[in-house]
Amino acid sequence: MTYHAPLKDMRFILDAIASFDAVHGLPGFEEASWDVACAVLEEAAKFSEEVVAPLNRVGDLEPSHWSEGAVVTTPGFSDAFRQFGDGGWQGIQHPPPFGGQGLPKLLATACQEMLHSANLSFALCPMLTDGAIEALLTAGSDEQKAMFLPKLISGEWTGTMNLTEPQAGSDLAAVRARAEPLGDGTYKVFGTKIFITYGEHDMADNIVHLVLARTPAAPDGVKGISLFIVPKFLVNANGSTGARNDVHCVSIEHKLGIKASPTAVLQFGDHGGAIGTLVGEENRGLEYMFIMMNSARFAVGMQGIAVSERAYQQAVTYARERVQSRPVDGSACEAVAIIHHPDVKRMLMTMRSLIEGARAVAYVAAATSDAAHSHPDETVRKQNQAVYEFLVPIVKGWSTELSIDVTSLCVQVHGGMGFIEETGAAQHYRDARILPIYEGTTAIQANDLVGRKTVRDGGAAARALCASIAETEAALGKHGGAAFATVHAHLAKGRAALETVVEFVVANAKSDPNAVFAGSVPYLKLCGIVFSGWQLGRAMLAADARRADDPAFYDAKIATAVFFAQHILSQSFGLREASLAGDVPNLMI
Amino acid sequence: MTYHAPLKDMRFILDAIASFDAVHGLPGFEEASWDVACAVLEEAAKFSEEVVAPLNRVGDLEPSHWSEGAVVTTPGFSDAFRQFGDGGWQGIQHPPPFGGQGLPKLLATACQEMLHSANLSFALCPMLTDGAIEALLTAGSDEQKAMFLPKLISGEWTGTMNLTEPQAGSDLAAVRARAEPLGDGTYKVFGTKIFITYGEHDMADNIVHLVLARTPAAPDGVKGISLFIVPKFLVNANGSTGARNDVHCVSIEHKLGIKASPTAVLQFGDHGGAIGTLVGEENRGLEYMFIMMNSARFAVGMQGIAVSERAYQQAVTYARERVQSRPVDGSACEAVAIIHHPDVKRMLMTMRSLIEGARAVAYVAAATSDAAHSHPDETVRKQNQAVYEFLVPIVKGWSTELSIDVTSLCVQVHGGMGFIEETGAAQHYRDARILPIYEGTTAIQANDLVGRKTVRDGGAAARALCASIAETEAALGKHGGAAFATVHAHLAKGRAALETVVEFVVANAKSDPNAVFAGSVPYLKLCGIVFSGWQLGRAMLAADARRADDPAFYDAKIATAVFFAQHILSQSFGLREASLAGDVPNLMI
Repeated sequence: MTYHAPLKDMRFILDAIASFDAVHGLPGFEEASWDVACAVLEEAAKFSEEVVAPLNRVGDLEPSHWSEGAVVTTPGFSDAFRQFGDGGWQGIQHPPPFGGQGLPKLLATACQEMLHSANLSFALCPMLTDGAIEALLTAGSDEQKAMFLPKLISGEWTGTMNLTEPQAGSDLAAVRARAEPLGDGTYKVFGTKIFITYGEHDMADNIVHLVLARTPAAPDGVKGISLFIVPKFLVNANGSTGARNDVHCVSIEHKLGIKASPTAVLQFGDHGGAIGTLVGEENRGLEYMFIMMNSARFAVGMQGIAVSERAYQQAVTYARERVQSRPVDGSACEAVAIIHHPDVKRMLMTMRSLIEGARAVAYVAAATSDAAHSHPDETVRKQNQAVYEFLVPIVKGWSTELSIDVTSLCVQVHGGMGFIEETGAAQHYRDARILPIYEGTTAIQANDLVGRKTVRDGGAAARALCASIAETEAALGKHGGAAFATVHAHLAKGRAALETVVEFVVANAKSDPNAVFAGSVPYLKLCGIVFSGWQLGRAMLAADARRADDPAFYDAKIATAVFFAQHILSQSFGLREASLAGDVPNLMI
Repeated sequence: MTYHAPLKDMRFILDAIASFDAVHGLPGFEEASWDVACAVLEEAAKFSEEVVAPLNRVGDLEPSHWSEGAVVTTPGFSDAFRQFGDGGWQGIQHPPPFGGQGLPKLLATACQEMLHSANLSFALCPMLTDGAIEALLTAGSDEQKAMFLPKLISGEWTGTMNLTEPQAGSDLAAVRARAEPLGDGTYKVFGTKIFITYGEHDMADNIVHLVLARTPAAPDGVKGISLFIVPKFLVNANGSTGARNDVHCVSIEHKLGIKASPTAVLQFGDHGGAIGTLVGEENRGLEYMFIMMNSARFAVGMQGIAVSERAYQQAVTYARERVQSRPVDGSACEAVAIIHHPDVKRMLMTMRSLIEGARAVAYVAAATSDAAHSHPDETVRKQNQAVYEFLVPIVKGWSTELSIDVTSLCVQVHGGMGFIEETGAAQHYRDARILPIYEGTTAIQANDLVGRKTVRDGGAAARALCASIAETEAALGKHGGAAFATVHAHLAKGRAALETVVEFVVANAKSDPNAVFAGSVPYLKLCGIVFSGWQLGRAMLAADARRADDPAFYDAKIATAVFFAQHILSQSFGLREASLAGDVPNLMI
């Protein structure tokens, strides 16, 4: 088997770190008991490991391909996606009235991690569909909901996000696609959209494109963008699919990785106009699209963790099997498996501790999202919403940046074999490279962290998080022993570095934006490592309390926290300096 | 043009940092005046830019391929290699008696950087030939030298290194290939060698394989390895090529990158035995092979700098052309070229400062090698040899590790376009990934740095280097101004961190090898950034002294040193902690 779901670590984090019990206690999640959660995780693991993971390599060797406007996906994908829909997996976190299972995002997040580990390319299709579902749930009319949600949630149809145009990548103000009202509530949509993930494929009966476009009298810039539903096949009043709409896939991209996922160039309206309906109100498209984007950004962060987990597992397997060189300490006269060599252990522990830290941060964020949606107390909802929104760019930015390093280390552990494509290590390295780019580059996440998440509330959310970290520090400090003291010391330094940077950002963002934004990515990375170190510190405390139940597992948790503190959290000083360094000279113009 | 040789920076480093004048003053280099050097650089730039660089993309799209034992290289490679030989480039640093030009390694290094920037895959062929030439110069008999060196130096024939076997990658003690003496001074060689760069190709009339193998009575382990010359075609007494030898290419690898460079599996002796001659004495093969390896390790370090330079240039070009989003400081109402955005500048400056630092370290190392070979005073030669040997694993390890980050940043600067293969950014990312692996992984370099380079002389070479850094610190400290104070402060912290780690390594390598070797790669990286920061500090002082000649160029040098200090040298603290952290728990077995 090429992937084993790390259920034990997932259950530990869900239970001990992300407070699954508290989520279960929220209104609406009464049926999501721990037993139910464990059963769902087991089934998700089985499906991901047995059905989806074996298609990962196939997708690299036999990518989706385009012919005459149609896209034929990798052999096996269609069948696996039908099983995915039939199993109810698309609806796991969506509302029961539309056919969903209504489970917490926290649980869905663990399931999605497994699906992404199994196959990034495959999992992108349901990931984008999730985003379309959330946008329609929030902004769609009752008629639109009734028409599209049940089919999207059942997996019969899939969804896409159509933002990017050749001249408008990260900058949506530059969107040029246009929508002409026909007077009957429908619009004709015209324009070219690029980089549309699963913009065309053969895995579902219909594709529901959510498209940003401008109406004739719309203002310039982002304030004049509206959101439209443009289905591949028009939908009849009875819900059946009708005529082919005027949206066509003119090509798909030849990419470095995730080759099985078709990345389409879509042409809208070349034959008279693609028929669409407006979602919500005119000129509020960006706001609605952000609903999809925030969902998708969190999910891409999970992809970073997921591909890292798979790369880690492959590296461990190889390191256990590959026999090479005698131990440096002379403890054996013969060559040993390379997993015994200090630097190989260092690389594997780097991978492992980065993954476990990022996973804990992401799961905690998911639990915060559940509380933000479902807690009965509005104040608590708002507090949780603020924390969740602060964490989203970090989950997205940090978990994807680290996936570059982790998949690179996977290649490195393999030595020369890692460079040979047959080994499969190189695929993870290639696949992961898109993650810090799509759904907003790391710089875009860092801009969001600085502008909307730190400066807008005057640093309140950031300071509250630092105060929570200080509580964990206090608990670590009270505990005896060298391991706890080490983590305590590094976490305290990291938190202090973060506080310094937060105050710098708040004080200077308006007066000297170039200085602050030049340090925004180091600030994001500093958040990533300090929050990871924090959650690993909490994990260490929980592991210590439960140690008697399973000493090997919990001792490993403690050792992982110590390693992370020494090797990763110790980078706080450098990141602080880079965050504070100020504007960058422009020597290259 | 896809590559412009950075001649201005090269000349500055050669002259101001690597003391070209002192090298010109060494016996044997009297004719290598500054004017000659500049003319050679111009010609090398022209050849690399115009002939070799255009073949880089071609090689990725039309890799060398195997058919029936033969390898057909990328269209254009054969012709370019003939021009390379005819131009005398293979012989640039080799002795005139065998047809070489006898120029300093310092100058050859700059020329080789250009060739590698132009085309990593192409440049590997002369790089391996250089190694073969050096091994034969040192250990070959007069007859062998006469038979092989002129043809290798003229580029009519090429050379290979045959070390790796399926069970023996980094661990040469496990080599199994065997050589049976025939009694007439020749041997029959049998065995399988893998990962043989340019082990078979159609670019030269003969291929001179240097092969590690064991004679019948040889002891086990590395003490029983001998080195043999096994040419593809046997060579007649008059120097003409004769019968086909029994060495055959049974396949080439399907790789992540450097696809134009054929990586061969060679089968020796499947049809009766491949005829070879012994180089030097029996059982001293490893020693001779290290001559090739040290030459090749330094050269692979140059590959890291070279591919980084090319990726940097491509990123700058894209960032100048791509218009996207308004400036964060509100200085323009329209979208601007992304090169004006703070994070893009940060990424480009990260790339630039890493490259300039590593280049300066490598050129200084090359000058040290010239002094080690040619200085009239034996004590000075020995001192320089010790410094050079200390620097080789750092040039190799650090310059290749940073090439992963720099080529990754090149993709990131391109955003979504970086993930599309047509853009070409992804090729650099794929090509670079082999560099920290072949000719000894980064861990192998770090083992060498710890064992042979730090512990064996009790830390003497390391301490001497730290003392030299302190001299530069003193000069920076005496200079006024914030920029110099910033670099001074970070360099002082970095040097102090390095001294701490050196003392830890010297004190504990014998008593606690697992602890020291677990921190060996962080130690190597710490050396890489501190030495880079040191050379950039020296560059800053030189730039300040020459500023009036060309203020824009020299101000950029000063700004680059400041950026490096704040963003890179500030990582010293984290690397110190990781270097000192001690043994890594083995949680994965």
